[in-house]
Amino acid sequence: MTPLYVAGAAAVAALIFAIVKYFAIMKQDAGDAKMQEISKQVQEGAAAFLKAEYTWLSLFVIAVGAAIFFSDPAQGLGQKTAIAFVSGAAASAIAGYFGMHTATRAAVRTTQAARTGLSEALDVSFSSGIVMGMSVVGLALLGITIFVHQYAPDFSAKGLEYVLGFSFGASSIALFARVGGGIFTKAADVGADLVGKVEAGIPEDDPRNPATIADNVGDNVGDVAGMGADLFESYVGSIVAAMTLAAITFKDDPNMIGLAMLPLAVAAVGIFASIAGTFFVKAADEHHIHSALFRGMIVASLAAIAGSAVLCFTMDFPEGVNGMKLLIAIVSGVAVGVLIGKVTEYYTSTETKPVHTIANKSETGAATNIIAGLAVGMRSVALSVLLICVAIYVANWAGIVEGGLSYGVYCVALAAVGMLSTLGISLGVDAYGPVADNAGGLAEMAELPPEVRERTDALDAVGNTTAAIGKGFAIGSAALTALALFAAFQLRADELLAAKGAAALNFSLTNTEVLIGLLLGGILPFLFAALTMEAVGNAAQAMVEEVRRQFREIPGIMEGTGKPDAARCVKISTDGSLKQMVVPGLIAVGSPILVGLWSIAALGGLLAGALVTGIMMAIFMSNAGGAWDNAKKYIEGGAHGGKNSEPHKAAVVGDTVGDPFKDTSGPSLNILVKLMTVVGLVFLPWFV
Amino acid sequence: MTPLYVAGAAAVAALIFAIVKYFAIMKQDAGDAKMQEISKQVQEGAAAFLKAEYTWLSLFVIAVGAAIFFSDPAQGLGQKTAIAFVSGAAASAIAGYFGMHTATRAAVRTTQAARTGLSEALDVSFSSGIVMGMSVVGLALLGITIFVHQYAPDFSAKGLEYVLGFSFGASSIALFARVGGGIFTKAADVGADLVGKVEAGIPEDDPRNPATIADNVGDNVGDVAGMGADLFESYVGSIVAAMTLAAITFKDDPNMIGLAMLPLAVAAVGIFASIAGTFFVKAADEHHIHSALFRGMIVASLAAIAGSAVLCFTMDFPEGVNGMKLLIAIVSGVAVGVLIGKVTEYYTSTETKPVHTIANKSETGAATNIIAGLAVGMRSVALSVLLICVAIYVANWAGIVEGGLSYGVYCVALAAVGMLSTLGISLGVDAYGPVADNAGGLAEMAELPPEVRERTDALDAVGNTTAAIGKGFAIGSAALTALALFAAFQLRADELLAAKGAAALNFSLTNTEVLIGLLLGGILPFLFAALTMEAVGNAAQAMVEEVRRQFREIPGIMEGTGKPDAARCVKISTDGSLKQMVVPGLIAVGSPILVGLWSIAALGGLLAGALVTGIMMAIFMSNAGGAWDNAKKYIEGGAHGGKNSEPHKAAVVGDTVGDPFKDTSGPSLNILVKLMTVVGLVFLPWFV
Repeated sequence: MTPLYVAGAAAVAALIFAIVKYFAIMKQDAGDAKMQEISKQVQEGAAAFLKAEYTWLSLFVIAVGAAIFFSDPAQGLGQKTAIAFVSGAAASAIAGYFGMHTATRAAVRTTQAARTGLSEALDVSFSSGIVMGMSVVGLALLGITIFVHQYAPDFSAKGLEYVLGFSFGASSIALFARVGGGIFTKAADVGADLVGKVEAGIPEDDPRNPATIADNVGDNVGDVAGMGADLFESYVGSIVAAMTLAAITFKDDPNMIGLAMLPLAVAAVGIFASIAGTFFVKAADEHHIHSALFRGMIVASLAAIAGSAVLCFTMDFPEGVNGMKLLIAIVSGVAVGVLIGKVTEYYTSTETKPVHTIANKSETGAATNIIAGLAVGMRSVALSVLLICVAIYVANWAGIVEGGLSYGVYCVALAAVGMLSTLGISLGVDAYGPVADNAGGLAEMAELPPEVRERTDALDAVGNTTAAIGKGFAIGSAALTALALFAAFQLRADELLAAKGAAALNFSLTNTEVLIGLLLGGILPFLFAALTMEAVGNAAQAMVEEVRRQFREIPGIMEGTGKPDAARCVKISTDGSLKQMVVPGLIAVGSPILVGLWSIAALGGLLAGALVTGIMMAIFMSNAGGAWDNAKKYIEGGAHGGKNSEPHKAAVVGDTVGDPFKDTSGPSLNILVKLMTVVGLVFLPWFV
Repeated sequence: MTPLYVAGAAAVAALIFAIVKYFAIMKQDAGDAKMQEISKQVQEGAAAFLKAEYTWLSLFVIAVGAAIFFSDPAQGLGQKTAIAFVSGAAASAIAGYFGMHTATRAAVRTTQAARTGLSEALDVSFSSGIVMGMSVVGLALLGITIFVHQYAPDFSAKGLEYVLGFSFGASSIALFARVGGGIFTKAADVGADLVGKVEAGIPEDDPRNPATIADNVGDNVGDVAGMGADLFESYVGSIVAAMTLAAITFKDDPNMIGLAMLPLAVAAVGIFASIAGTFFVKAADEHHIHSALFRGMIVASLAAIAGSAVLCFTMDFPEGVNGMKLLIAIVSGVAVGVLIGKVTEYYTSTETKPVHTIANKSETGAATNIIAGLAVGMRSVALSVLLICVAIYVANWAGIVEGGLSYGVYCVALAAVGMLSTLGISLGVDAYGPVADNAGGLAEMAELPPEVRERTDALDAVGNTTAAIGKGFAIGSAALTALALFAAFQLRADELLAAKGAAALNFSLTNTEVLIGLLLGGILPFLFAALTMEAVGNAAQAMVEEVRRQFREIPGIMEGTGKPDAARCVKISTDGSLKQMVVPGLIAVGSPILVGLWSIAALGGLLAGALVTGIMMAIFMSNAGGAWDNAKKYIEGGAHGGKNSEPHKAAVVGDTVGDPFKDTSGPSLNILVKLMTVVGLVFLPWFV
């Protein structure tokens, strides 16, 4: 049981580290009164968003929790699963709350620190990212540890079924934070622009526009809380799936526990490695920000690999399991995680050929810009998915035992755990971007000296790159996690059927039900993407109407004497976006249940079809959106005539199309793919 | 053997009917000298296109044919397959040549007939479509009949392997005609516009622009020859796949031959039914064109069902095979073929909500128009694929025998045969559109009285609707055909392995190789779509340079005294487009071979992954493109400010993005999906 306690200790260490960092941030100077006034509005807006979101969310969690609570406990559902489910939802919600709470307070302190120097500003903003990263891994691993300790002290598949509830709870939050939040952030963005810039003729980020705050809140919602919840889900899902696969594959082996505890131990090692990595993130000037962050991640990755090597070579595994090969599986996950980020950077960075091609095609208008962007996005699918295939191939190879019990699917899950092991720092690197971005906005609004803005701009530019890398990483880890959960689904289905004396399932492509399932599953990402894109437009409409109302009804608002009701604006837009996510959410939760009630084989097909199409669409949409964004920035940097030229106008069209692509629909597909598989796995007893 | 001779007779009847119709068209008045002069240029352009295309094509056919010729004949390849392969390519090429030859001559006669009346004009243009439709079904069925007679008189799976070569040959032409032709048509369109309208400032369809002829040729290339080759491939593929499935499933049953001959018999019945249907296509005025065409198709469908019923109730089938259920499978195919067309019409017609939404979103600019169009395209995937799933489910159900030998996959193939049985008339309805379109262009260029243009416009408007329906039908039939070929692939793989004493394959989703194959297969449609979209831009560039050169070098060209070299323009653009299709073509042919050499299970996954993602992408892209096109037309009809308003400019951007979507990438994916499966099936002996 030692690794379980070590995992618990690592989780607590992560949380302590997060709290220490939080207080270190809060000790920083929060700037002058004007800065604090603006910052406070964003903080209040974020609180308003979370309040509204959590109200809706509670209803969902209570309804689904009750359904689980009153289901047959003999089938792995019931009371225990319900408790784990609610806890998973709560843990992810708390991590998201704490991360956003910190980010909205760190932004103004980053601005203030930028008055002193770049190094200081990097320190504050990166610390804020680390608070998010460490909260996620700390609460996730703590939750898993507690529920394993309580429900599955023997690491049996039966006990781990209850722990799966924790994963399902985390998925539910991810649905709300990533899909609802993704709709909110772009709806606020579009809504603020439409009424403010177009109708009222006031500049962007103008404090008189009540939607400005919502826009700033949106950045935190999408890139901090949304990304955090997405990766919280992957982190929990990959660990629980790996444990379940070990428990099922080696259920009769006394050393099974070693294999089942390995994912926990790797996660624990990853936390300590991530903490160590943070101490290497120091940059004296703007040319070294990127390398500083990269250095931190490389140190953490190498430390995690070293620690994993110790685990693989010292722990007791079942007969025939090769420690060296386990390590290779872990390393393949770590390596592919880094490489997918690099591929994403290649397709979306302002410095590379694909983005320059899009900028070039903007010379002949918006249509050619759009075609080029779509083509870049579609093209980018190949390399990213090839890397995922390599990870799967290598990991699976690591688990093949000639003439013995193979455990390739476990190794694929372990690769996912390896990829996510240093999430504490990699999420930190990712979540520092929006803080730097907001800090820049604050510097502008509070009219600080130009060198402050220059420093925050330098941080923000690197933040854009890390955000793109983070998106690639999120998709890659979602793919491997979903695959691991899918493998657990298949093994568990066979086990449940065998327990009932029924024949094993035919998941073969020769089975027509599997094929129909594949086709139905393939539909869902397209439908989900369409619905979320349309949702942005609809939710933006609610925002537009509220801003118009305030301009009309609040006296003196345009003269700056009346205070705009930013919180109400945030709330209306939040309600609008959450309402818009009802149908996509129902599809994600409902379709596996409906198909499962018809045929488990078709459900297997459904999950595989959604997985394959969902990953492709997620990469396509995220990268197309990122490439359009940076093609516009590249032109704004002076290429093809620079700002306000005809090519720039064409590039703005591409960027606008790319907004829901990269910040709403694309990332939402990660959730669709994982959530569907978790639902299929949790409710499997209903279908057998 | 009677049904085989009946099939041969039906094929000959179709060809005679096509020739009779051809001479009836040629007997019509070809108009005045000016009309004939313009028409002649299009005819020469088409000939130039075909000459260039067939040159490249010959190289491909000779190279691949030689590879097959010298492969081991004991493995189903070798001399016989090579002969069938070359014949399949030749048959499809001849059908395409004859169809285009007729279409380019019928256009001017339609214009002339429109001077007399609408009914006469409909008669000429529809007859031209019927020449294409009947040539396709006649040559396809004749080829199959001859090769079955020669190579598989016993209808054995072994013999049918050689016949498969005919299907592969047809697929090769489809690759060139649909992908190369798809690139050509849009490259010519874009190239003509860029230099003519934008640079030289001369109107569209101006005879001084040497690319104008290429543009008109392009319509015929894409919508007549491309569509024809696509459906020729589906027609042959579905029939041969169904026969192969019968031969393998019931190989020990003396009545197997009845089941193997049924697809031929259904195809024969469908030809006679189609011929009968053509006599019901008569319209006195413009309000009855659509209903006239629809009446013809309904008569043909009902007659085909009635004839199939006779076959199902009178032919001798193996023990346990239910004639009634076979009929249900056929009817499900026919019904879904009609319904998918209706769904496509709903999402792309100027009269319906999705298109009006796009038009409405054009009010706020190009970006919202693009987002709305993409969303409509993605949304439209659901209903179309659901219909395909219903057809698969019903057909598979029809072949389930409790406690006996089930033949569900055969019934799925039979549904595809049913869907395509009335191709003679449905392709005719589809291919009349471009003739009417060209006739309108001729009326404009030859400055005929306005009532002539009004009549051709009425024909053209209906042609746009039937083109959209035809695209949906082409995708639906491609999906079912690919599924049938895929089922044949699986059964044949098992058979070949069993013959070698090897274990049956594990095509289960639990097999990691299958999963990797699925992911790799999912990449291909995205890559293919990206490459074909980019190809349009690149090929257009070659056209632009040639037109610029002619404007510069040919004296008096702008004054109308120098004759533009249209044929050279067509040739350069043809070479450009064919060069651009080398990479996509290599991917389609090469990827199944490469993956197959690694693992047959992975190849199964690859084909399934490409099938699922390919169908989704094909529907998404075709329907998005169609919807953007008609949103623009709807605005041009007066909505949202009409032509040259801001919404119209936004809608033009959407339409331009939609052009390669609906006319290049979308339809090309049909070919990718089918061709990959055929390649996997034909070269299977290499992998075992």
